[in-house]
Amino acid sequence: MTTRDECRRLDAEDPLAFTRERFRLPHGVIYLDGNSLGALPRATPERLATAVEHDWGERLIASWNEAGWIDMPARLGGLIARLVGAGEDEVVVADSTSVNLFKAAAAALQASGRRVILHESGDFPTDSYVMEGLARLAGAELRLVARDGLAEALTDEVGVLVLTHVHYRTGAVHDMAGVNAAARAVGAAVVWDLSHSAGALDVRLNQSGAEYAVGCGYKYLNGGPGAPAFLYVARERQADFANPLSGWMGHAAPFAFQQGYAPAAGVLRGLCGTPPVLSMVALEQGLATFDGVEMPALRAKAMRLTQLFLDLAAERCGGFGLEPACPADAEGRGNQASLRHPHGYEIVQALIADGVVGDFRAPDVLRFGFAPLYVGFADVFDAVERLRIVLTEERWRDTRFSVRLPVT
Amino acid sequence: MTTRDECRRLDAEDPLAFTRERFRLPHGVIYLDGNSLGALPRATPERLATAVEHDWGERLIASWNEAGWIDMPARLGGLIARLVGAGEDEVVVADSTSVNLFKAAAAALQASGRRVILHESGDFPTDSYVMEGLARLAGAELRLVARDGLAEALTDEVGVLVLTHVHYRTGAVHDMAGVNAAARAVGAAVVWDLSHSAGALDVRLNQSGAEYAVGCGYKYLNGGPGAPAFLYVARERQADFANPLSGWMGHAAPFAFQQGYAPAAGVLRGLCGTPPVLSMVALEQGLATFDGVEMPALRAKAMRLTQLFLDLAAERCGGFGLEPACPADAEGRGNQASLRHPHGYEIVQALIADGVVGDFRAPDVLRFGFAPLYVGFADVFDAVERLRIVLTEERWRDTRFSVRLPVT
Repeated sequence: MTTRDECRRLDAEDPLAFTRERFRLPHGVIYLDGNSLGALPRATPERLATAVEHDWGERLIASWNEAGWIDMPARLGGLIARLVGAGEDEVVVADSTSVNLFKAAAAALQASGRRVILHESGDFPTDSYVMEGLARLAGAELRLVARDGLAEALTDEVGVLVLTHVHYRTGAVHDMAGVNAAARAVGAAVVWDLSHSAGALDVRLNQSGAEYAVGCGYKYLNGGPGAPAFLYVARERQADFANPLSGWMGHAAPFAFQQGYAPAAGVLRGLCGTPPVLSMVALEQGLATFDGVEMPALRAKAMRLTQLFLDLAAERCGGFGLEPACPADAEGRGNQASLRHPHGYEIVQALIADGVVGDFRAPDVLRFGFAPLYVGFADVFDAVERLRIVLTEERWRDTRFSVRLPVT
Repeated sequence: MTTRDECRRLDAEDPLAFTRERFRLPHGVIYLDGNSLGALPRATPERLATAVEHDWGERLIASWNEAGWIDMPARLGGLIARLVGAGEDEVVVADSTSVNLFKAAAAALQASGRRVILHESGDFPTDSYVMEGLARLAGAELRLVARDGLAEALTDEVGVLVLTHVHYRTGAVHDMAGVNAAARAVGAAVVWDLSHSAGALDVRLNQSGAEYAVGCGYKYLNGGPGAPAFLYVARERQADFANPLSGWMGHAAPFAFQQGYAPAAGVLRGLCGTPPVLSMVALEQGLATFDGVEMPALRAKAMRLTQLFLDLAAERCGGFGLEPACPADAEGRGNQASLRHPHGYEIVQALIADGVVGDFRAPDVLRFGFAPLYVGFADVFDAVERLRIVLTEERWRDTRFSVRLPVT
């Protein structure tokens, strides 16, 4: 049995322990939901206040040039690039993940000259919803196939395969290089949704032969609620990347006010409208929390945290009907532990009331995320201990925990 | 000749003078560029700090419910509705103006069963760029026609006509009711871009029979740089509004994680991805600057400010080659004065250096916007006086004013 003292020793020896000070975490809370909304970086409030009071309030439109607002999509993209194994000129920050999925899948489909979109059924809902909309508008066909049938469904009819790298509910990780190779073999492109990978796994887009990807700024990247998302287009696909949302910010000369769309060189053509600057400023501070952090080390710590949680839960919370809902091997699992229970919703609410914040994913999954920049080993120990108490004392039976909230 | 004392008397008598205190304006600056970026509301910094430090930092994901983050698109839409003559259930805040244009035009085109998009050539570039992208993806045909040929081009082949209500460069106002009626007569829909009208003119979407509109949050609505935009869908068009960007936030039950897109009832189906909450918080404060302000009174003041500027410029700045570039009648003109000069760029830069902030629009237009919530009559007098000095002393010939900035 792992003891709390052993966990404290692991924290003391943790080479990444220094990043925890970069965050403001609420007192008394163990936050295991950084995979839904990253914690607040300590530097964000002051930086945002300066952006609001000085850059906007005092300098007004001059800040588009002076404060570099106009360059933020490319600058922040360059910061994200390092975290996902891409070149600095292959990533831009823009819009939401859903909107970027639409752009990437539409452009990939058009480049393929084919009309079939393949997607995993049971993947994060917005991905399939967005593909439905694209298929209808573009006159394409959407094929939803379960995970174990994807290899067979990947035929030479498929123009683009859209996949989430780490499954939002189970945490299962796709073999990125293997899928890319299989797709290339039949002439299909892959669009990767990195929402649960960016800033979490040691993603190597270039090395794995990835052509298109999108991802989320508000989870592991700590950009704040609804932070802008990102779009990756590999260098060799940029020239034929036809962004269907061809707004002025993706134009070669946005302020020339020319008639006729002429796409910007490179990944900048993936932009559309004016970026939400204040949310971008917060995202920039979120990205700064990764300064000096190497992704292999980060992922290694996260795997240990997740495995520790699962081991401790198995040791200490047996006999209460919890079932694992994530892959057993650490390599094939994202930085999250998923457990299944018929009263998962109530258990999550009872845990939150006791200061352990995870979340619930319908129909029955308790989900705990381990953001290694601010979660430690003793946190994991304490979280499992509180889970044990909630289960032992049946605290989740309190009727206030069954009240369904609009957002879960 | 109007004197400065007369202008000060107009300010003293101005029933809308009370709103100026709602803004933090930089000392010594006359800000005539609220049609590019609205000024900073006084309440925004503190409200945003609370949203960051308490709602995000302390309460984390709980704020989706507790702080009403999830309801912001509808709540802010309801606030905008009053300003544009729409029902509270007809407007949502989401994405950028460009992205919303794509949604509205795509949905209108699909509802029409036709394949021609008609658009005014020389309109704000992003509108035509976005229509190019839509036309290519949807297999539609984009027809760009000059303003004076639009009536003739509006045939029964046209599915959707996309028009900016107030022209960004000239300020010319389209007759919204007249265009809507003409379109209806041939079975076409109209999508209005209200970027230069919302919070500026007395827009009456319902009364004029408008079916679709989009608009900008960062100009007259004072939402901050790149603030989210809005989408209007008239009640009777909501049921068949097929949003091509069918992301989870527009789903009937976003957190049920169901397979298969089922659009939300009403205008909420116009949403796509997760909203940029921090930018939304700032927009909410921008909208609060309109509390107690009636749009007819606001527009009346703006027309007087604009006319005063043009009259004073004609009186005091004659003989320097300035030519009017906006309609002569106040009713047919937005809240902006546009003047043409071969050295317009340099004159605008020299004015900015002297504390009068307007902007330049290629190829030769000096543009001055009059946001009546914080611009007064003496400001207008002083601005024209400084323009006169820049011209008389030929200050614009200083070589530093010819350096071209990335954003103009």
